[in-house]
Amino acid sequence: MSNPRYTLAILGGTGNEGPGLALRWAKAGHKVIIGSRQAEKGERVAAEINARLGAALVVGMTNEDAARACDVAALTVPYAAQNPLLESLQDVLQGKVLINVTVAMQPPKVARVYIPPEGSACEQAQALLGPGVQVVAAFQNVGAHNLEDPEQPLNCDVLVCGDSKEAKAVAIGLAEDLGTRGIDAGPLVNAKVVEGLTSVLIGINIRYKVPGAGIRITGLPE
Amino acid sequence: MSNPRYTLAILGGTGNEGPGLALRWAKAGHKVIIGSRQAEKGERVAAEINARLGAALVVGMTNEDAARACDVAALTVPYAAQNPLLESLQDVLQGKVLINVTVAMQPPKVARVYIPPEGSACEQAQALLGPGVQVVAAFQNVGAHNLEDPEQPLNCDVLVCGDSKEAKAVAIGLAEDLGTRGIDAGPLVNAKVVEGLTSVLIGINIRYKVPGAGIRITGLPE
Repeated sequence: MSNPRYTLAILGGTGNEGPGLALRWAKAGHKVIIGSRQAEKGERVAAEINARLGAALVVGMTNEDAARACDVAALTVPYAAQNPLLESLQDVLQGKVLINVTVAMQPPKVARVYIPPEGSACEQAQALLGPGVQVVAAFQNVGAHNLEDPEQPLNCDVLVCGDSKEAKAVAIGLAEDLGTRGIDAGPLVNAKVVEGLTSVLIGINIRYKVPGAGIRITGLPE
Repeated sequence: MSNPRYTLAILGGTGNEGPGLALRWAKAGHKVIIGSRQAEKGERVAAEINARLGAALVVGMTNEDAARACDVAALTVPYAAQNPLLESLQDVLQGKVLINVTVAMQPPKVARVYIPPEGSACEQAQALLGPGVQVVAAFQNVGAHNLEDPEQPLNCDVLVCGDSKEAKAVAIGLAEDLGTRGIDAGPLVNAKVVEGLTSVLIGINIRYKVPGAGIRITGLPE
């Protein structure tokens, strides 16, 4: 792998998606921080991941300390938690890349595509944080189920949207470090589709009784 | 194939997408009508398709005559043409399934996802036509390039959204008749994502210099 190594904060990293991402990124050589509301919870989840890794590669902190310490942050919180958390981290995230994994949805109707007035959770995040933070949409369509076994290559592509080419390159590199392909899916306004696809995939999981439907882009060179 | 055979009208069928769909559906045993604003244009395109088929299987008519004669209609017009055409066909389409291939977009920015106030072209069509017409979103992500050679299986899935299970089954059968898989992607509100994916794929075609990117759903049984 020739992609850069980062200090990565996974904000809200104790949920469904965070530990699987942390495990794979730590294995790929990144320094990974699990951020949580309580430092103890972040530390506990980091210890669980380290036990699986067989090495103390991941640490736990509060979200604020994690955001301060990182080069690149990934946000994996439920939609309702996004704006309050980002408001509290607005200052410490300035100058950084924020990879937003959050999906705008209206529980309990999570299989129904929801477009908020701002267009998407990612567009909301960019508006809230201002131009000093480069928000990128990515990893929304990678189900937690697919991350479970780090020896298994991911059976899905990662669509990446954003208004900064450099920030998209960071996310595309991190997709490769998960063992799959990151694809430039255009400007941040296109995050509507990437987020909405998550609801479509949840519905497909239910209707077709599968644990982790995903998407691949066809027609690209291998 | 055990799917039903229909009399299919392809409304606005003389554009990029219509002839490729017509060719494959005619080969699969459907009676296909190319609808156009001018009957002569529909007849000319039908004759071109028949020449490729080596048999007179496709006919051309005005959109109105085609809509009147069909069991199932597919709409393949540019977004700006959708509402005027559907207003003129509102009466003759009552009681039928309308498969809407149209994508809401704002030329010239066709690689930028556009969500109209009504949510999507398909939701607009359903609102305009009323509950007597079953509108289904499908085939928006099948690039014309991929339809060209009818001997080649399609290298993409067809996402199908709608509020009627029966109407979705019609579209899923027609996807199978194209040589691919139709997937139930949920209610018609989810058409936002299926339409928006077209803009994402157009952008991918441009950025990755490929003629016809498409999507596949992973994680389903073969």
